[in-house]
Amino acid sequence: MSVPAGQHTVRRHNLALVLGEVAGPEPLSRAAVAARTGLTRGTVSSLVEELIAAGLVTELAAARGGPGRPASPLRLDPRGPAGLGLEVGVDTVGACVVDLTGAVRAQRTVVSDHRDDDPDAALARLTALADDLVAETGLPIAGATVALPGVVGPAGVLERAPNLPRWVDVAVGDALSTRLHGLPVRAGNEADLAALAERWAGGPSDAVVVSGGIGVGAGILLDGALFAGGGGRAGEIGHVVVEPDGQACHCGGRGCLETVAGLEALAAGRPEAVGAAGRALGIALTGAVHLLDVPAVVLGGSYPGCGPPLLDAVRAELTARVFSRAGVEVRFSTLGPEAALRGAATAVVQGVLADPGALIVRA
Amino acid sequence: MSVPAGQHTVRRHNLALVLGEVAGPEPLSRAAVAARTGLTRGTVSSLVEELIAAGLVTELAAARGGPGRPASPLRLDPRGPAGLGLEVGVDTVGACVVDLTGAVRAQRTVVSDHRDDDPDAALARLTALADDLVAETGLPIAGATVALPGVVGPAGVLERAPNLPRWVDVAVGDALSTRLHGLPVRAGNEADLAALAERWAGGPSDAVVVSGGIGVGAGILLDGALFAGGGGRAGEIGHVVVEPDGQACHCGGRGCLETVAGLEALAAGRPEAVGAAGRALGIALTGAVHLLDVPAVVLGGSYPGCGPPLLDAVRAELTARVFSRAGVEVRFSTLGPEAALRGAATAVVQGVLADPGALIVRA
Repeated sequence: MSVPAGQHTVRRHNLALVLGEVAGPEPLSRAAVAARTGLTRGTVSSLVEELIAAGLVTELAAARGGPGRPASPLRLDPRGPAGLGLEVGVDTVGACVVDLTGAVRAQRTVVSDHRDDDPDAALARLTALADDLVAETGLPIAGATVALPGVVGPAGVLERAPNLPRWVDVAVGDALSTRLHGLPVRAGNEADLAALAERWAGGPSDAVVVSGGIGVGAGILLDGALFAGGGGRAGEIGHVVVEPDGQACHCGGRGCLETVAGLEALAAGRPEAVGAAGRALGIALTGAVHLLDVPAVVLGGSYPGCGPPLLDAVRAELTARVFSRAGVEVRFSTLGPEAALRGAATAVVQGVLADPGALIVRA
Repeated sequence: MSVPAGQHTVRRHNLALVLGEVAGPEPLSRAAVAARTGLTRGTVSSLVEELIAAGLVTELAAARGGPGRPASPLRLDPRGPAGLGLEVGVDTVGACVVDLTGAVRAQRTVVSDHRDDDPDAALARLTALADDLVAETGLPIAGATVALPGVVGPAGVLERAPNLPRWVDVAVGDALSTRLHGLPVRAGNEADLAALAERWAGGPSDAVVVSGGIGVGAGILLDGALFAGGGGRAGEIGHVVVEPDGQACHCGGRGCLETVAGLEALAAGRPEAVGAAGRALGIALTGAVHLLDVPAVVLGGSYPGCGPPLLDAVRAELTARVFSRAGVEVRFSTLGPEAALRGAATAVVQGVLADPGALIVRA
């Protein structure tokens, strides 16, 4: 069948509109979707059939209420195309499957130290893990996003990861796509994906979300969206200077936040390591708050494991140093150290919900 | 005459479209404007008449070329409604008149120390200066923008200026409007207005523009526009921490950039004051570059007066600390310490050019 381009565009837009209503908190009948979108019932039925055929929408048992044909409430199909989240950490690989409804269906992270390792070996381990996990869930996979611990360029290339000296200009997205039988794979910075996960889990719309690990990064949320900065690589808070004459950093600089508040410094076990990390975080965040004018900070990754002493030290520093009258709200993430992995998988699902037509066309 | 709202909107849009063409580098005839905008010659003529009547456009002497009616090239009218720039500095007040063509027609800054001073006295001095300057130029004034050395809220209120303890929540825009016989007066942060002035003078589209004075601030340009941050008060680089245990700052913090690179530290005349300021600027800018991913830095305000030793120190620090492969371009502003004043006046002119209909309706 050949129809004008304009009709394709309108149909694609309407598919997203209908799926968006179905994704809402309450199950809706076709009639209710028609009422909410302003589309005719005939159009809605045709679009719903297409979404059902693509495995995106399912009908619950019909509820017989008033007279006439019973209304079948529509829901996102938990057996439909799921999102695969992948992560290359400094010393781990992880995978996660999130279904269309946002539920985590499988998740696993295994130790795999990449500091002296060759990217190929790491990507082979990651692919094997992903294949296992996908097979366990038995779900079709719509696509994947991989979270990376460094600077990711616009084409999904890991340009540089200060803690992984052998990973320079590695086209991780393309390499994984090949290994995963042509599945579309996007790449993103792990802190950015963790920040999106915070947001999707109901977190603040304007915040610096710090991801603490061997490396320290941040995803910056402004008005609910990720702030890319001038060149798409914003948020490298780990290399904000907190001790001008401090320790040498893997990045080539000196006294970066990461040298005091990264996991290696924390694990070195000096008696006051947590206090020092909190103070350094507070100093770096003072700069971030003054430059970006954000009212909230979320500390994620490994930081929640440090407990109240870390939070207290960060808060004390910000209270003493930030001159914004409203103050800065600081809290721990509740998503755990796998926030980036979950954000990566959810990013795929969000992409399907935003444009189901792209998936249908590809199928 | 009563016409539907839609027609008013279209006419207003078309007035801006025509004025935008007239403001271009080459004088254009009505016919050339019609060709470039796609409007009919009749519509263009009617809009041009309205712009001439409002004093925004003038016709140059007709150039008789081929056959038929000679073409009269159109230009912005240098006698038309001008922009008034005002500035309350820490120890100065200034005023500046920029005409529609962007030419500075009058500019004056006088000493007026506000550190222990009452806002009313300062605003009276500023208004007297502005009245004198406007009278000298003889130009009609379209509006004013006032540059302020502190945090300016959305309604044009100076919320806080760390160096002016008596200026807390002062509605400077409203107060000046009353003193200036109801002229519309907007207020902006001085570093933001200086950054816009850089951009309008052909500067980079993505940059941190630092304004050095008694206070130190920055305007952040992303994609040619001012970055407002989460709450509209972004760019307070003067209170990024560069010496965690350093000197107490007027803001209540400690070791802020301003304590090392503000004019008071520079004027204290320690032998290495310029080097220390450059190093501190480099440390704070390392954080800004990593957080915002900007490729360029412009040092303005009083900094160009420090000469090459300052520039060298900033560059050395950024080279040693920033891990972006592309590096960061650092240069001095060529606009002089009155960049904010000029930006304030030009902001008014840019507003008239973007929406001449607003001015015409008001008149």
